[in-house]
Amino acid sequence: MTAPLHDPRPTGPGRVSSDTQQGMRRRNLARVMHAVSAEGSLSRAAVASRIGLTRTAVSTLVDELIRAGLLEELGPERPGRVGRPGSALAVSRRGPAGIGAEIGVDHLAVCAVDLRGEVRARAERQGTNRGRSPGPVVAELSELVRDVVAEARGQGLWAAGLAVAVPGLVARDGRTVVRAPNLDWHGVDLGELLSPEPAFTVDNEANLGALAELWLGEGAPRDFLHVSAEIGIGAAVVVDGGLLRGTRGFAGELGHVPVHPDGPQCVCGGRGCLEQYAGEEAVLRAAGLAPGGDRVGLLAGRAADGDEAVRRALREAGTALGIALTGAVNLLDPESVVLGGALAGLAPWLLPSLEAELARRTAGPVCPVSVSRWGSEGPLLGAAHSVVRAVLDDPVGVGVGAG
Amino acid sequence: MTAPLHDPRPTGPGRVSSDTQQGMRRRNLARVMHAVSAEGSLSRAAVASRIGLTRTAVSTLVDELIRAGLLEELGPERPGRVGRPGSALAVSRRGPAGIGAEIGVDHLAVCAVDLRGEVRARAERQGTNRGRSPGPVVAELSELVRDVVAEARGQGLWAAGLAVAVPGLVARDGRTVVRAPNLDWHGVDLGELLSPEPAFTVDNEANLGALAELWLGEGAPRDFLHVSAEIGIGAAVVVDGGLLRGTRGFAGELGHVPVHPDGPQCVCGGRGCLEQYAGEEAVLRAAGLAPGGDRVGLLAGRAADGDEAVRRALREAGTALGIALTGAVNLLDPESVVLGGALAGLAPWLLPSLEAELARRTAGPVCPVSVSRWGSEGPLLGAAHSVVRAVLDDPVGVGVGAG
Repeated sequence: MTAPLHDPRPTGPGRVSSDTQQGMRRRNLARVMHAVSAEGSLSRAAVASRIGLTRTAVSTLVDELIRAGLLEELGPERPGRVGRPGSALAVSRRGPAGIGAEIGVDHLAVCAVDLRGEVRARAERQGTNRGRSPGPVVAELSELVRDVVAEARGQGLWAAGLAVAVPGLVARDGRTVVRAPNLDWHGVDLGELLSPEPAFTVDNEANLGALAELWLGEGAPRDFLHVSAEIGIGAAVVVDGGLLRGTRGFAGELGHVPVHPDGPQCVCGGRGCLEQYAGEEAVLRAAGLAPGGDRVGLLAGRAADGDEAVRRALREAGTALGIALTGAVNLLDPESVVLGGALAGLAPWLLPSLEAELARRTAGPVCPVSVSRWGSEGPLLGAAHSVVRAVLDDPVGVGVGAG
Repeated sequence: MTAPLHDPRPTGPGRVSSDTQQGMRRRNLARVMHAVSAEGSLSRAAVASRIGLTRTAVSTLVDELIRAGLLEELGPERPGRVGRPGSALAVSRRGPAGIGAEIGVDHLAVCAVDLRGEVRARAERQGTNRGRSPGPVVAELSELVRDVVAEARGQGLWAAGLAVAVPGLVARDGRTVVRAPNLDWHGVDLGELLSPEPAFTVDNEANLGALAELWLGEGAPRDFLHVSAEIGIGAAVVVDGGLLRGTRGFAGELGHVPVHPDGPQCVCGGRGCLEQYAGEEAVLRAAGLAPGGDRVGLLAGRAADGDEAVRRALREAGTALGIALTGAVNLLDPESVVLGGALAGLAPWLLPSLEAELARRTAGPVCPVSVSRWGSEGPLLGAAHSVVRAVLDDPVGVGVGAG
């Protein structure tokens, strides 16, 4: 916003500097990508009409995007349209792909998603990561990443970036796991362990699950609280279509909202936190089951079979969730609450008591609670799509000539 | 973002439509106002340097702002500067003023703030508004507004707008009080009761108090939770320098966060909400004092005198605040918590137990808690300044020729 006192460059209204032109070109490339991506396929004329540029300007942009392998031509359009026949454009099925990865407490997973949003390769490995040191876990994950990248390469795709979901607090640097109690990781710089290629970013699993909710499918709310679980309970706060990250990147720690302030001691130092009542281990304990293995599958199976102890444990967890969510809804006034991650699979037994508690404590209309359509796959999909969105948002960053 | 298929207007990079030029002029007028406002006084050359426009462009903008009475010339600058001597500019002490008003549970207050941020007129009336119907309350408030506007007019100021702080939930229409339990107002459209001139907006008192905190004085955080009280307890969530309002405009209802979920019944329908432990009436009850009158003054006076019952009641309120704030801090990860409104006056006796509770329940660094420098004057000042900011942000809106 500052310039030398006697700036020799022309300034004032009407001045368009080369910076601005370059920025405008970048934005227009992104607008073309988003227009085509949103529609599946679109002619140059339709792109021009949609984004309000001339056909000539659009053709230049489209040619650049085709050369960079981000758009492809589907062949001549069917006749009957006004003007000379054009070729329909689509986002390329070859070219850049987003690689998503998840370090879960009990599994590792990696997938490649192309610019159209299709999962084109996927690998996973079951087995607990709890208490394992980060080095071997990341080495295993990197092996899966290599496999998935190789499989994608066989289909003409290359890795535009890697996003890693972790069940813990991630610093705003996008690489340091500050605290992942259920892995017993504290202050782990994953940036030192991950290969520098492809470029990576690390984020909290609830955040990435929320982004999947926001981006995939129709009619997602733009202001919601996404509650997720994998042993611990996390949440992500989405405000006006973006994540509220907090000063340190730690926003959304619903699991440590006090529910019964004099309740049992929690790992966080507090007492009676939500995790003590609705975390997976608390629910297993209340149901008289041993921890370990596919806990959610076990709970869901027993509940479906009518196991009264399991159903009661889930009812009580739902009540605790309802109390914590009452506080969250009072603070944030979201459009809705979405249960994602492992909670999605348990929703049939959690929801009735959760909703009853929320209603009981709410004056006026009750905030609607829905179940994620992506469930425990959400964080992995959100991770891969965060890379895809970055490519659509700035095609110059991945290979279109910088002008 | 759409245009007709064969838009005859020139488009594409490099095109600057007259809309854009007009928008740019509006933005540049605002940048001039903010530059001068931030510095107190500034020469044309300094403005040009600061905002990166030519002196010629700035002079045109400045002349318009002087004609509209938003800027004034202070006379020739002292010699010794480079270039021909210019006249220092300042934001006008005459011209538009922001009118702030507050409907409190026990008082009404109105003030006029000029574009420099100085309070130039102020009026207030003590007396409970609890249970009074909105008509007579607004009629009394409007009388105070007329008095203050007349007093301001005598000083060469005119009312650019009115913002009204209320102790309740306000819909996003900026005029409907959806719920103000401590006034016993429900679904009151203040827009029907207020005079259409000056243009008005209604907002929650905690929101306006938070804006005062954000705008006035140096070094305010840009991500904080502002906790306020006047019988009820409200809060405002500031994220990245802006208010998080929530879907319906109801965000920040800290008073109804459950603290002891099986605690006493609350007016909101819930049980054991924060207000049941830290609201003024709860504190008075716990201290064995009768409600009514200057409650905060009474509590502060007794506490200062060493009244052990009052001190204990305030300690317990601080603990309850600490529990509710633990949840809020976990969800929002703010840079700090600011105690404002009536809570500011009680801070010496609330803070120790509040901070202890927060520390006890927090792993890692504890979110700092500070006390508002504006105290119970915050909402009124925030209201008036919200009008002033609107003038600085868009001088065209209040009288600079629209092009």
